[in-house]
Amino acid sequence: MRENIVVIGAVALGPKAACRCKRLNPEARVVMLDRGSRISYGGCGIPYYVSGDVSDADELQSTSFHMLRDAPFFRDIKGVEARPRTEALSIDRAKKTVLARNLDTGAEETLPYDKLVLATGSTPRTLPIPGADLPGVFAVADLDAAVAIRAQLTAGAVGRAVVVGAGFIGLEMAVALADMWGTETSVVEYAASVLPTVLSPGLAAMMERHLREKDIAFRLGAQVTRIEGEGKVERVVVGTDAGEEVIETDLVILSVGVTPNTALARAAGLAVSPRGGLVVDERMRTSDPDIFAGGDCAEITNLVTGQPFFLPLGSLANRQGRVIGDNLCGIPSRFPGAAGAWCVKLFEQNASGVGLTLEAAARAGFDAFSVIVSQFDRAHFYPDKAFMFLELVAERGTGRVLGAQGVCEMGDALVGRIGAISALMPHHPTVEELSLLELPYSPPFNSAMDIVNVLGNVGGNVLDGRNKSIDPPTFARLFAGGDGAETFFLDCRERPNAEPFLKAYPGVWHNIPQGQLAGRLAEVPRDRKIVLVCNSGARSYEAYVILAHAGYTDVVNVAGGMATLHKAGADPKV
Amino acid sequence: MRENIVVIGAVALGPKAACRCKRLNPEARVVMLDRGSRISYGGCGIPYYVSGDVSDADELQSTSFHMLRDAPFFRDIKGVEARPRTEALSIDRAKKTVLARNLDTGAEETLPYDKLVLATGSTPRTLPIPGADLPGVFAVADLDAAVAIRAQLTAGAVGRAVVVGAGFIGLEMAVALADMWGTETSVVEYAASVLPTVLSPGLAAMMERHLREKDIAFRLGAQVTRIEGEGKVERVVVGTDAGEEVIETDLVILSVGVTPNTALARAAGLAVSPRGGLVVDERMRTSDPDIFAGGDCAEITNLVTGQPFFLPLGSLANRQGRVIGDNLCGIPSRFPGAAGAWCVKLFEQNASGVGLTLEAAARAGFDAFSVIVSQFDRAHFYPDKAFMFLELVAERGTGRVLGAQGVCEMGDALVGRIGAISALMPHHPTVEELSLLELPYSPPFNSAMDIVNVLGNVGGNVLDGRNKSIDPPTFARLFAGGDGAETFFLDCRERPNAEPFLKAYPGVWHNIPQGQLAGRLAEVPRDRKIVLVCNSGARSYEAYVILAHAGYTDVVNVAGGMATLHKAGADPKV
Repeated sequence: MRENIVVIGAVALGPKAACRCKRLNPEARVVMLDRGSRISYGGCGIPYYVSGDVSDADELQSTSFHMLRDAPFFRDIKGVEARPRTEALSIDRAKKTVLARNLDTGAEETLPYDKLVLATGSTPRTLPIPGADLPGVFAVADLDAAVAIRAQLTAGAVGRAVVVGAGFIGLEMAVALADMWGTETSVVEYAASVLPTVLSPGLAAMMERHLREKDIAFRLGAQVTRIEGEGKVERVVVGTDAGEEVIETDLVILSVGVTPNTALARAAGLAVSPRGGLVVDERMRTSDPDIFAGGDCAEITNLVTGQPFFLPLGSLANRQGRVIGDNLCGIPSRFPGAAGAWCVKLFEQNASGVGLTLEAAARAGFDAFSVIVSQFDRAHFYPDKAFMFLELVAERGTGRVLGAQGVCEMGDALVGRIGAISALMPHHPTVEELSLLELPYSPPFNSAMDIVNVLGNVGGNVLDGRNKSIDPPTFARLFAGGDGAETFFLDCRERPNAEPFLKAYPGVWHNIPQGQLAGRLAEVPRDRKIVLVCNSGARSYEAYVILAHAGYTDVVNVAGGMATLHKAGADPKV
Repeated sequence: MRENIVVIGAVALGPKAACRCKRLNPEARVVMLDRGSRISYGGCGIPYYVSGDVSDADELQSTSFHMLRDAPFFRDIKGVEARPRTEALSIDRAKKTVLARNLDTGAEETLPYDKLVLATGSTPRTLPIPGADLPGVFAVADLDAAVAIRAQLTAGAVGRAVVVGAGFIGLEMAVALADMWGTETSVVEYAASVLPTVLSPGLAAMMERHLREKDIAFRLGAQVTRIEGEGKVERVVVGTDAGEEVIETDLVILSVGVTPNTALARAAGLAVSPRGGLVVDERMRTSDPDIFAGGDCAEITNLVTGQPFFLPLGSLANRQGRVIGDNLCGIPSRFPGAAGAWCVKLFEQNASGVGLTLEAAARAGFDAFSVIVSQFDRAHFYPDKAFMFLELVAERGTGRVLGAQGVCEMGDALVGRIGAISALMPHHPTVEELSLLELPYSPPFNSAMDIVNVLGNVGGNVLDGRNKSIDPPTFARLFAGGDGAETFFLDCRERPNAEPFLKAYPGVWHNIPQGQLAGRLAEVPRDRKIVLVCNSGARSYEAYVILAHAGYTDVVNVAGGMATLHKAGADPKV
């Protein structure tokens, strides 16, 4: 079929849809426009270009075998007419045309379409504060912005930097600045913890602690009120509950989220959701069946909540692009939605997750609980290993898994575990399914009882009322208020492990090795809350069972044990 | 409930079932017997103990926090009576008793049970050949055997070794001997390739090539006919199609599979399958509802074929143990079966898989195809990366995923991908589901289009007849017979890549860069089979589309490209 296909936007989804369509229907004429000069690049690689890990911006725009994905590439290799520096001005849905302007020549052209694809992406939000437009204030908008940031770094003009927003991109940029350029970097975040939408406070504390050890400074629960400077940025003024603080800086990076680019679609009368994204169905069709949309400008279905949500990720854009390519050629492929899987590497620490945090689950109306487990990422007797920390979020009653998040120095090992859970999310797994999950096993890679199975086991015990656990922030709050009168902190490890804590906190910290507990119940008060702790949470769970069997009712177990408290910086100082 | 629970076998499943039961029902009396002196150890760690990576055998028998899991540990920490060096002689199902003998004192005792658990494990097969019982011939039966092997290595008495069997344990032992002890090691395998039951010949060639580079010698398609020596092993005689060969050696390790230990159960009249494993239902009950069994002595359901199979893996034993523990206490947990996920690390190369290979799928009656893809394990612009090779096995028509296997230097990254596919296997995923699989994405961990998505995409194209691919062995066969008269080898890369091959194979090797192909069709013959090749298989697929559109019918595409051929040692030598 000699159809005309026009694709607006040529970064991630656009090229994928265009090329898939052209392969399925070699007769089609596929034209792809983009306002930018660079097309088909890996925007997620920008922090690695800024850091210098990726030496040349062209690498982000190249294939694995070093072919630059520019207009000639699309013409010769893909049979697609790519037009960079060309802006789509309007869509005439009645005539089925797009009016486009060449940004270099100013020439305008009307392109006819049989099917149209909107891959217009998103724009970084800015802050409605004075000074946000000063030179030296950047948003990580596109590869051109990245080139400008790196030029300033290369010129040696950045001794200090402030990053606003402790989400993925903000923290990746902070690492890029501090790690490779030695920039004195501060991160300002409105929420009380880093990565606030995707990590619980307990796991977030682990990441924050690592970043602080790498000399990144944080202002959490803080808001930038203005940016000042003479002709360029010189300082950032931050407001907290305690008052105002001024941070001197040479560079400001704003990373406070993105807004879908939907002006063109709105002007054409296409349906846009109250949250601002284009409304599409499972086949990625907008309210006009001849117009498809996907990637950062569209909303998709959250597979956990069943509700539409906005998830601007390059990986989703690519998969949606293929679905659109199919549908452009009459193959009724569907994109069912996403559970929101993510991962991030920050120095030598990694975090990953899928689905909802406990807070997000509560906000979505679930009666949820969460539990943290800790275990070596591979057999404990294998030479190279690291502790992994995983948190499960599940629904009470049904035992449905709503989310899982984790932190580990072994990044691939962590991402592999979250990936396995993510793969299951469209099937609405239960906690029991995690207990039984079959993962490849060998000592260099995991334990015979993998941490994902343990996560299911511990989650199942909590669900069935056989275990009750607390997370590091809750422990820290209890311990901060603990004078021994209300709470009995019981260390279930052997004496040498408990010794330093007994000395530092007499009358508050107590020790009965778990193997002796059944015979020493007389030492455990029945009128106080009992907080059980061991190294990883396994022995304190055994202790919990003993106390529960002996009729104790107000007992909690520090999930993941001292390993987890220590990682989160919530262990009592000795 | 004050029930008597007797558990026979205390290595993997036994302790798990016993401890879970005791936690759920603290009133129960749980007695656990084992013939061996060591209990509750990680048998899968034996090669790492033999290599010396694990310095002390006790480490394999310890918790993460260095507590030895011996009888006092089970008594004090778990409330379980563990009795090492105690053999179960018989079961009286009518009286519900077990007759047991202490192997040190010879004392016999009759233990009453309300519920009985058989965790009797398996025994390594031996070879019915002369000399198999000579000193210096070992099977990797248990930790005691490992201690004996390592003692001989430590004594410096092993310059040369022969491993019989190129399965997981055989190859892991070969690596342990060659890597850490510098032993000159030969592996003899009856099948024509290594890891023959779990890897296709194409992927197996990748592993074999790596092991050969590390100076491990192979006799494939060969059979040990006798073992000779005066008072101890001195040589192994190997028969091949070409005749007999004698290999001088100081040590022989037999690793030719295991047999379930079912004598006790057979004598008690419990149902045993024709394949030799105990028959159990989903709740791990034998034909006697008061007797449970699991681990290496029982058969489970293969989730791909739906048929019973025998899969002796420590990871499965642990999960089954928990299910049995539940059922001992009236919780009707179920173990639905397994898809057969596995992984192995051999020097710096790793392999992993789940489900069926193409050969196994054909044997199970599926009309299956397979396809290999190659891609960097993480973003191609990210500094540290390695090529990953994944093979998909799927059913024609339905597109059902029957298995997936892979090879990569980045082991965790590979195992993570297979783990995600493995997680899906109980849900009978289709190839399309792999295309859409949501994995956490960030450049340090993967590409925006993850290799699992690519595997689904390529599989889908083959399924729909839009691509036809060949694997490395097929390419090697075609190329070996290629004088240019029957097959046209068309390199779709740019000229400099193709140049060495054009020079080495004039008239056989041809080059048209894919971007020029549409305009140079006159150079492509219509009377010969066309074999397309590029670096990774992406451009040759584009070329395939062009040729198919131009009416060519006998065209195949080298799946995974030159990267895959090279990895498997099947690339033309230049």
